Parts: sequence; C-alpha cells; structure tokens
Amino acid sequence: MGKKLRVGVIGYGFMGRAHSNAYYKVNKFFDLEYEPVLQAICGRNEEKVKAFADRWGYASWETDWRKLVERDDIDAIDICTPNDTHHDIAIAAAEKGKMVLCEKPLARTGAEAREMVEAVEEAGVPNFVWFNYRRVPAITLAHEVVQEGKLGRVFHYRAVYLQDWTIDPSVPQGGHTFWRLDANVAGSGVLGDLLSHSIDTAMWLNGPIVAVNALMETFVKERVHQEKGAPEPVKIDDATLFLARFENGSVGTFESTRYARGRKNKNAFEINGEHASIYFDLEDPHRLEYFEHSDDPRLRGWRSIHVTGFEHPYHKNWWVPGTTIGYEHTFINALADFLKGLQTGTPAEPTFRTALATQYVCDAVAKSAQTGTWQEVTRI
Amino acid sequence: MGKKLRVGVIGYGFMGRAHSNAYYKVNKFFDLEYEPVLQAICGRNEEKVKAFADRWGYASWETDWRKLVERDDIDAIDICTPNDTHHDIAIAAAEKGKMVLCEKPLARTGAEAREMVEAVEEAGVPNFVWFNYRRVPAITLAHEVVQEGKLGRVFHYRAVYLQDWTIDPSVPQGGHTFWRLDANVAGSGVLGDLLSHSIDTAMWLNGPIVAVNALMETFVKERVHQEKGAPEPVKIDDATLFLARFENGSVGTFESTRYARGRKNKNAFEINGEHASIYFDLEDPHRLEYFEHSDDPRLRGWRSIHVTGFEHPYHKNWWVPGTTIGYEHTFINALADFLKGLQTGTPAEPTFRTALATQYVCDAVAKSAQTGTWQEVTRI
Amino acid sequence: MGKKLRVGVIGYGFMGRAHSNAYYKVNKFFDLEYEPVLQAICGRNEEKVKAFADRWGYASWETDWRKLVERDDIDAIDICTPNDTHHDIAIAAAEKGKMVLCEKPLARTGAEAREMVEAVEEAGVPNFVWFNYRRVPAITLAHEVVQEGKLGRVFHYRAVYLQDWTIDPSVPQGGHTFWRLDANVAGSGVLGDLLSHSIDTAMWLNGPIVAVNALMETFVKERVHQEKGAPEPVKIDDATLFLARFENGSVGTFESTRYARGRKNKNAFEINGEHASIYFDLEDPHRLEYFEHSDDPRLRGWRSIHVTGFEHPYHKNWWVPGTTIGYEHTFINALADFLKGLQTGTPAEPTFRTALATQYVCDAVAKSAQTGTWQEVTRI
Amino acid sequence: MGKKLRVGVIGYGFMGRAHSNAYYKVNKFFDLEYEPVLQAICGRNEEKVKAFADRWGYASWETDWRKLVERDDIDAIDICTPNDTHHDIAIAAAEKGKMVLCEKPLARTGAEAREMVEAVEEAGVPNFVWFNYRRVPAITLAHEVVQEGKLGRVFHYRAVYLQDWTIDPSVPQGGHTFWRLDANVAGSGVLGDLLSHSIDTAMWLNGPIVAVNALMETFVKERVHQEKGAPEPVKIDDATLFLARFENGSVGTFESTRYARGRKNKNAFEINGEHASIYFDLEDPHRLEYFEHSDDPRLRGWRSIHVTGFEHPYHKNWWVPGTTIGYEHTFINALADFLKGLQTGTPAEPTFRTALATQYVCDAVAKSAQTGTWQEVTRI
Repeated sequence: MGKKLRVGVIGYGFMGRAHSNAYYKVNKFFDLEYEPVLQAICGRNEEKVKAFADRWGYASWETDWRKLVERDDIDAIDICTPNDTHHDIAIAAAEKGKMVLCEKPLARTGAEAREMVEAVEEAGVPNFVWFNYRRVPAITLAHEVVQEGKLGRVFHYRAVYLQDWTIDPSVPQGGHTFWRLDANVAGSGVLGDLLSHSIDTAMWLNGPIVAVNALMETFVKERVHQEKGAPEPVKIDDATLFLARFENGSVGTFESTRYARGRKNKNAFEINGEHASIYFDLEDPHRLEYFEHSDDPRLRGWRSIHVTGFEHPYHKNWWVPGTTIGYEHTFINALADFLKGLQTGTPAEPTFRTALATQYVCDAVAKSAQTGTWQEVTRI
Repeated sequence: MGKKLRVGVIGYGFMGRAHSNAYYKVNKFFDLEYEPVLQAICGRNEEKVKAFADRWGYASWETDWRKLVERDDIDAIDICTPNDTHHDIAIAAAEKGKMVLCEKPLARTGAEAREMVEAVEEAGVPNFVWFNYRRVPAITLAHEVVQEGKLGRVFHYRAVYLQDWTIDPSVPQGGHTFWRLDANVAGSGVLGDLLSHSIDTAMWLNGPIVAVNALMETFVKERVHQEKGAPEPVKIDDATLFLARFENGSVGTFESTRYARGRKNKNAFEINGEHASIYFDLEDPHRLEYFEHSDDPRLRGWRSIHVTGFEHPYHKNWWVPGTTIGYEHTFINALADFLKGLQTGTPAEPTFRTALATQYVCDAVAKSAQTGTWQEVTRI
Repeated sequence: MGKKLRVGVIGYGFMGRAHSNAYYKVNKFFDLEYEPVLQAICGRNEEKVKAFADRWGYASWETDWRKLVERDDIDAIDICTPNDTHHDIAIAAAEKGKMVLCEKPLARTGAEAREMVEAVEEAGVPNFVWFNYRRVPAITLAHEVVQEGKLGRVFHYRAVYLQDWTIDPSVPQGGHTFWRLDANVAGSGVLGDLLSHSIDTAMWLNGPIVAVNALMETFVKERVHQEKGAPEPVKIDDATLFLARFENGSVGTFESTRYARGRKNKNAFEINGEHASIYFDLEDPHRLEYFEHSDDPRLRGWRSIHVTGFEHPYHKNWWVPGTTIGYEHTFINALADFLKGLQTGTPAEPTFRTALATQYVCDAVAKSAQTGTWQEVTRI
Repeated sequence: MGKKLRVGVIGYGFMGRAHSNAYYKVNKFFDLEYEPVLQAICGRNEEKVKAFADRWGYASWETDWRKLVERDDIDAIDICTPNDTHHDIAIAAAEKGKMVLCEKPLARTGAEAREMVEAVEEAGVPNFVWFNYRRVPAITLAHEVVQEGKLGRVFHYRAVYLQDWTIDPSVPQGGHTFWRLDANVAGSGVLGDLLSHSIDTAMWLNGPIVAVNALMETFVKERVHQEKGAPEPVKIDDATLFLARFENGSVGTFESTRYARGRKNKNAFEINGEHASIYFDLEDPHRLEYFEHSDDPRLRGWRSIHVTGFEHPYHKNWWVPGTTIGYEHTFINALADFLKGLQTGTPAEPTFRTALATQYVCDAVAKSAQTGTWQEVTRI
C-alpha cells in the first residue's frame, strides 16, 4: 500500500454499488502497492448521489460527469452508467489523462468501441473493462487448464446465458431501473447485456471467433416506458442465438434469453477437447466440472471440483478452504488484478482493445440476424 | 393374448438384439391381445444368423431379406439393418401386405422416406418407426405435461445429443460395426443417427419446425475403411449444429456430436414456457427436471422428479415404485404401444408419415449447412 | 449352455416375478454352461399360481411347497416367500438334496439362519442368498476399487436406506401385500427388509462389523390388519438407526426408515478412506461417485462415474456404452454369477453362511435397541 | 445510523478477520440505528496486532485482553480467541458491563458455559454467540419453512459435518494454527468445533434434544505439538457420531469428522416430516432442497431452490436475484441481526443461554461416548 489512487465513480446504481464495495474492500484482502480512494461519486439525482456518498464514504460528489472528468484530484474514472454514455465519458476521461475503467459492454456498437480504444491508446492511459466473470475462481481455473494444454485439440464450445425476469409483459422498459430493455440506451438486449459476457469468456478460453450465424427474437413486442408511462415498441432482442466458428477450428453454439423460466442466472459453458472437457454454471459458481480422458477408464467421470482450496485462484486472499465467496468478490478480484497491473506494468485483461473484439462479434451477430447469413467477424 | 403376430426381424446386430428382447418379453409385462412370435431372423452371415436364431428361439432364419419378405408365415417385418436398406425392404414388405416396423432414421433422405410412406399408406399396412426414446417414461411424462398446457406459451427449445466415441482417429469407418461412419450406408453422420432422435422428440413436444440454419463439421477427415483396409475420406458429419424456428413461435438450438469428451449418451433437452420449464438428460433417464412458476416464490426450484412411481408412464407394468428400468425397456414399451395400436385401431406414433417430417428437417439442415442460409422445412 | 437346471420357484409375488424374469432371460445375455428351466411355480392360491405359470411358461405348478420339494424333477428350489417360511423350506429342500436359493433376509433371526446354514452345508448343496444389490454394476465397481486397495486405511462408513411409503397411518399391515409390516411374518421391519441390504453391502466392502449400538422406533403404533380387518398394535421397527465399529478400525452409522418423505429408494452409502472415498445412491444406480486424493489438487473433485462402459462390471453382457440397465438386471447378473459358480466350483457370494453374518448383525442391533447398550456381534 | 457501538475485538486470526470484515461492512448493506466502530483489536503478538489494526483501520490495539476489558471507550467485547479463554474473558467483560459477543462453541464444557450465562444475565448485558450458519439464507429459509408448520409431524433429523484436513499424520497439534487439535485449548475436537454447529442448527429447527448415545474415535494417536516440537498424545475426538432423541418424538443421527476424504466443508442436514422434507449442504450454500408431498404426484420431486431471490432471507440487502453471497456474509447477516436486536429490544438468537443448551448436548455426547450408554441431556 501507499500509492493512493483517487477514483471517481460515475453511476450509483447496482454497478456503482458493486464497484464501490470493491474499492472499499480490496486492500483489506489483497496486498497491493495501490490503494484506491473513494474520491467522488457522480450521478444526476443530487439527493440520491449525496446519500450514496454518505453511505460509502465518498469524499465528494458530482451531478455532472463532465465536471468530474475535469477535476484534477481524480486519477481514475470508473464508468457504471448505462451503455449509451460509455463512449462520451471514456473519451473525455482519456483526453484528460485519466485511467478509465468501464462496465461491460464497452459500448453499444463496435464503432463506438473502436473510438474509445483509440482514445485510451492515444492518451496512453490504463484502461479496463469489467467483464467480472473472468474472476470467478472457477472460470479463472478453467483458463489455467486450457492454457496448460490439458484439452488438446478443441472441438466444441457451447454457451448459454439464461434468465427469466422479463417474461411478464407488464415489466416496463426504460428509466432508471429498466434501461436494459430500452434499445436506445442499451444498444441491444441480451446481446450486449448477457451474451457479451459469454463471448468474452469464450474468446478468453478458446480464442477468436471468426464467423457467426445468428437469430434474434423479441417475444414481447410492446412495453410501457417507465418514465413516459405509455406503451412503446420493444426494440431490443429478448433472445439471441448463434452458431460460431472459432479460429482454432472448433465450432460453437451461443444462446441468451431472459425468457428461460426457472433459470435465474445460468451463465454456463462447456468446452470439449480431445483429452478433457470443462463445464461451468454461474448458478453454482464455486464448482467447475472437469472430465479427464486419461483417468483410469473404469473410474473416469466428470469431477465436480469445489474451487475453494488454497491451490485455486484468489482463494488464499479470502477464507479457509471449503468456504465460498460470492458475486461481489468477482469485482474485488478484478480490481486487485487491475491494481497489480498498474504495479507491474502488465495491464490486466480485458483492456478496451480486448473488449473491442467482443464488440465486433456482437456486431456480426446483430448483422447476421438481420441478413440470415454467416457474417465474418472484424478482427482487432 | 391370443392373436399371434409372426415377426420377421431383419438384422441381428445391436438393434436386432434389442428388438428380439422386446418381442421375447413384452407379453410377460403387458396384457395385450397380440402376442409376437419370433418367426424368423434374417442376416447375411449364415453362421451368425443361425447362432442368433438359436439363442433367441427364432423358429427359422433367412440370409436374404427378399426371401423373408415373400414368406406367407410372416405378418410383420421389422427392419434393423443399416440405413441404406430401409427403403427397399420397407417398400417390398408393404407391397406384400406386411406390417412394417423400421429402425430410425426412417431413411437416408426425405425422398427415400416419402416413397416409403407412400408404399405403406397405399398398402394400408400398419407401420411404425422405432424412435424408442419417446418411451423413456420421463420423456413420455414431459409430453403429458406439455399436452396439458402447463407450459403456457413456449419461448425456447434447446437440445443436444453428445457422445465421444469417435474422437480417436484410429476408429475405422464402414463394415459391420462402423457403418454409421460411412456416408454411403448411413446417409449422414450424427444428423441421422443422433439428431433425428432430438428432432423427433422436439416436434412431438413442441410442434413443427418450420425453418433451420445449420453448420456441419467433419473433424477427422480420413479414416480406414474397416473392410477395405485403406484410408478413405470421411463424408459424414461429425458434428451438426442448427438454429430453428418452430411453428408455435418458439426458437431452438440443436447440436449433436461424437466429439464431446466425457459425454457418453447425453441426449438432453430443455423447454422454457411462460409458466413452466422442463429439462431431461438421457444420462439420468429416470429423472425429469421440472420448474413450475406458480409454486410459492420462496420455495420455487427445479424439481428432480424420480419418474418411478405408479403414477408415471409405464411404471405399473414393471417393478415397485422407486426402482428403475433401463434402455431396453424403451423398446418394450414402444412395442407394447404398437401392439395396443393394432388392438384399438389407433396407430402408435410415430408412423412412417410422422417420421417423414423428421426426415424433412434433416434434409433442410443438410442443405442449410451447404448453403449457409436459412432453409424452410418441407411440410408433410 | 447345455446343462439344464430345473428350478422350482416358491412365491409368485413381486420377488417371484423378478426371479422368473431372471431365469427367463439369463441365457439370452450370458454365455453359460447351465440353462435354467422354469420347471414349477408354487403358491397357495391355485387360480393365481396357474395364471402366473401361464404367463411365464412354467412347465407345472404346485400349491403346497412340501410337494414341490419332494419332486424328483426339480434341481433347485428358489424361495421367494415371506420371511417366516424361509427356514422350513430351505431345510426341507436341502434335506432333499436340492440347491437352495433364498430371498433376503435369509431368516427372521440368527437362530433360524444358523440352522439353515447347517442344513445346506450338511447336505453339501449349492446355496445362495439374493442380496441383489451386490450386482448393481456401480456397487460391484465399488467392491473392485476397495479390493484393489485404492482407499488405503478406511475411517468411515455411513449408510442410509430411506423410503417413505408407510407414513400414511391408513396403510394396513399383514396379508399378501403388507406382510412386511407384520412382525410375526417379517421378523422385523426395516431392519430385515432394508438394513439387511445395507449391512450385507457394508461388510462386503468394508469387512466385519464387530459391535453396534442401536435405536429403534415405531412411529405409527397401530394399523389395521389387512386380512383380519381390525387394528392391531404395530410390532415392527418403522425406523432403525445404529452406530457401528468395524473390525478394520473404521466406524459407521446406519439408518433405515420408511418415513423419509421424498426418499423413494435411497439406499446410499459412503466410504471414506485415507486415499479415496466412494459414494453410491440407488436412486441413481448407474452412477458411482469417487474422489481420489492423488489427483492434481487444483483439479480434484468427486468424479461422477457413469457406470455404463465396457470396462464396467456386467456391461458387456448388456447394451452399448452409455445406456443404462435397471432394477431387474441386478437379479439377472446375480443369477449369472450363481450359475457360473456351479460351473467353476467357486460358489457365488453371498452364500447362506455369508448371509448368516448379516443376520447376526441384525440380532445385535435389535438387542442393543432393547438394552440401550453396545452389543458385540456374534461371529460366523 | 447514528448510535456508535465501540467494539473491542479479541483475536486477530481467522475469526478476528471475519468479524472485523462484518463490522466494517454491515452499515453499507443494512439500514440500522447502530453503527459499529472498530475501536480496538487485541492480540498477544504486538507486531501482528499492530499490522492487523492498520489493515482494518482499528483506532487502537491492545496485547492484554484484561486491559481491553477495563477500557471505558469500549461498548462491546467480541471474543474470537481459542475456546479456553472464552470463559474468563466473557465473565470479566460482563462484570464491566460490556455487551459480549462470543465465537462458538461458547465454552469447553457446560460448566464453563453456565457460569458465562450467569455472568451476562446477572450483568444484564446483551450477549450473542456466533453460530453464523443460522444466517446462511438457505438455513434461515429452512427455519421459516419449519416454523410455518409445512413439515407436519417430524420423524427424522440427520446431520453430518465432514471435513478431511487432518488425515495426514504430519499435521501438528497446538500453537496458533492448530489449537483446534489440542484438547486443553479446544476442549474437544470435532464435537465443539463442528458438531456444535450441527447441534445448534438442529435444535433451532427441530427443538430440544433429550437424549444421546455416542461414539468417539481418535484415528491418529500422536501428533507433534507445533510449539513444543515433540510428539504428544492426541486427546481430541477426530470423529464423533451419535444417535439422538428429540423432544418432539423424532429421532436423529449426527456425525462429524475431519477424516472424510473429499468432503471439504460438508455441513449437511435433512429433516423428514409428514408433509415435507428439507435437505441442506454447506458445500452448495445457496441452495435448499425441498420436497413437498402435496405436489401433483406425477410432478413431485425434490426442488432445488436457488436461494437468491428478493423473497429470500437477507437477499434484498445484497445483490440482484440470481447472484450468490458467500461465507463472509453469514457473519454480516448475523451482526445485522444482533444490531437490530439492540434496536428493537428483542435479542438476536442465539444468546449465551441458547448456546448453553448446545453445550449440554455436547457434554452428554462426550459422557455417552465414555460410558457407552444413553445420556439424558441437561435442560437449560
């Protein structure tokens, strides 16, 4: 500890809270040179932003992000706002020489994202995208396994991200709470919100996706706008499904929806390799299922690994073996890695550029769904 | 009992054995008017066919199916041979006025299958295709649940059929044992062998598939032909994946492969409806997972139904509650239904015509994989 | 095949049916010198025994077991009747020089069982007790694992056998269907019916039990007698729980009940050894859970072994890998082993003597429950 | 917020850290009148206690708990030290009028615990024992279910608490890290450390235990003392198993060990009632398994409840539905309840008196293991 990192967080919603908690806790559990300081919180509603600042101990608050970005006492800007604001905030912050951390998806489109990449790279500022699930210890372990070559040639990748909270047609769109259902704000529906996670994980584990063929569906065609109070056409994708070809020759299926009754947060994937396979499901985040073909044939079986040992990623920073961590810790682990990146000079992944690749896959998916044809993915 | 049904079974391989067992046992466990008689078994290798006849108690044997089909003492022909023979046998048998039971897939192509349908319908003979998994009690229960409307509007269907037995490139193609890898004999790879099951189940549960978009891959490009002893190009699909649109507005993903390390016979599907969801996995065939949204929200969860009660399909014919039946019983249950169909005059499903619909989906899948575009499915 | 073994089965209830099926099928799936012949079925109700003989193809039937035992055309007597008759039938059959196969539990008490052992050993006739669960392939595999020393020193054994079918107080006792609830006929409740299975498995896997400390409970104190029509006190144990010490130094818990709501046939056990552990649950009979400490610590986990490969016990006799067998096959596998025992001269286990050891544990359990103290187990 | 509660924590080990985190975070997630202040941390090693104070932001530190207890600026004493110190610290703190929070088990023996109860009750100070697992949301939900009478008459309770970290004989005893294996310090082995959790949960859910019959075993007879460096006899119980009778007529089995290879933190229990059953396993802490007999018989099955909805205990204070919390949150939830108890005047459970009942069960278990006979449990 010692180097203070004065952070300005923009957005005090669900993500603002998760990030604030990460800044608040990270130095209690990780030994790091850098120590984040909760310098400022920014949000448009003055009353709420003040209350949030009070609760979390922010040194100050702002209601206009442009003012925050101008301030000299801020080292890093953390963007926790809806997707339509990421582009402008990130570029402004980079231009002011701030580090930029941005919630996922990086942007609404590849075009927006590319400009953001150019901005942070031109400014030479550290940058990071909060694809927090990379820091679920079981997923990090999956990455280790793949990196060590234990799978051999990979044949298949399949991913689903299933939820069920928008089945009821009376769920509104727009506003503070339901902006994820408003295409103007979110850019897309499950594609940006959920599948971007699946795609980021997939490419981290299995390399670039080169081509996709997709289908999008909107089941509920009209929803009341939360603020305007009147029904409006729903323009987001309620469900997105696609087939994929990876650069390494493997093939994949991806599916996401908010209409899978009974699935609360099923972000699951499976990789099938020549020698081994891996399965993960975020609904049981502390487990990794692993099959190793070289085991004694009589005693071969999917191993249900309880990823809570000191041998496992991040666990030594937390509690004794056999105890679980939860959702919030993925943010803290991510932040610790970001801070270590500052310390070592090797930036933590995913950077803006890495996240751009995910954005390009999303673009190709959206286009394929319109055209009904295979789309090549733009390479970063 | 009382009405003898003299059966001539063609093929004494894996399926010939499963069917023989069904004929041998069905009247021990089901009270039926009809009683199958093992009248003749037919296969090309005389020594083997004799041994098989001895073991199972067949009254006679033949080495030429054409002779079998001519015999007057045969009421029903059961086709357990490789796919390339289904067409000719079925049509010849129908023309002789025999009932025809045929292993799945009905044929190599929709064109073949259509001619078979025409033949049995013109002849007016009972006909049946052994999509045996419809008679896994848990799948039959799933069908009951859907029929009763418990799901409400359906949004999603997803199916996989995963195995791992052809990963080793030294597995040959062709011959008695490996004809499923020989495109001339089998017509296709996993598409006809595995996905046809998934498609039959899907349309039974969720109605017609109207359009598909597919990808096929052959991972091992060359395999030794078991009989010829030399390497030949592999022309089957090692893996087939497709997106689907159902007539009822739901969307689906389907995937099948023999390269999913660790998956031995994972024929799994999930249906997500407005009010309820269902999940099944053939690797745990005695269970059905069921989620009902109307349960007390605090106590809602996927129910793991042990489908072994007297309330469940077929169980009263077998053992006491809590005991499981196995793979072979799906054939016996199917046969019992076929025989009941003869008795009642309401033919057991799937008939040849019903199986033709599956064949048309397979055709559309294969074509889509070639063209890279969505293909409409021909309707029966 | 070739040597006919003329079998006389006594009892045409649930077990008579399961055994008949085994005799009927065994030679279809196993290559054996001996071939059982369904020579006679015996039961007190003439109409029912005739119908049963018809259905299963028995050559003859009897209504008095004493007459059956006298017949010269019977090589083996198979006892499928309620427990109170095992003793007399077995001894009479042995005295006539018949082989004797007996359903479990061997007898109501150790005293009865000891006389039965003496009778068959004095007569020098092959003898066998149908503890069928030894032939669940997963349990046989567990035995292989233990025999190979993979567990190292064993510390713990824990077993439950849970059902829920007697919770309703209106379930009667006595008569043809409910004799298991009548202490005079059954000898005990869950102790003899369910725990005897658990004890047989435990001692097969983990060696002799030397001392026990038990608790028995009868939750429903009175039930209508099915035949007499009036309420009578319930004298069986509804639930039996005990602590155990094994000869090898390990300690165990055992519990059985028919009042475990939701547990249909949960015959489960776990063994914890120095190097490995095993878990089995009859509700998922095709799986064995196995943990091996020597695996890479990061990738260690309970392996869920799908016990359906050709490497696994009995599977080669049945269907292709990945397909399951069921409850009835445990009897067929057992019968095949019994017949192989005749062929090789090494008797299949458990013999009457082996089953006597289980009986002695049951005696000690019952006595401990009365006295509230530890009881040593009589050794065979 | 507003009322400061100045806390002095004694012990900076694993538990000191878990409690510190709870004090640090509770007001960020719960709206409470009281706000804990990290006033002082106490430990014998000055260097370490200073470092700990620094990391967590304690206002001061002490190396002698007696001095801490004397301080006027401390409102509550939180005891996170080994078991042999609980008695003296608690009584001294109570005599000074401090609130007392104590890690479990409350004491080494019932006699110690009784004096502690007398002290806090005489002093009239709020008191609390950290049986943190009551605040796993799934266990709290189980309590709700039982309280609402959904189970009907209860027949069975079974609990295990299994770990595997002391199998290796080279694990030492004593000292800072391994005091749990030193009988003088810990009082007992798994009985106090693990079974006390199981007993507390059992009595919370199922009422008083009235009699027990137990077995204790020490598998490794000698271990090196970590500080003294020489082997000493091991005097703790490595494993404790017992049978129990509850006041409500149900019967139970309990087992705990640190020799269950592959079980990392398996604190599991099952309750079987007339109408419903419940199963929980701490290795999957976010799930509760629930079986309700009144469901449609065809669709009845164990429900796997993902206890992460806003309907579930504590979840609204954390993150969105479908996301998990972890081990540390059980302490924060517990602390929130303790603080609410101060606010409302209804003390949070378990108080010292409630924990005394658990201690009495432990005493009876230990005595029964010595005598080999049933022991009545002293009532509080």
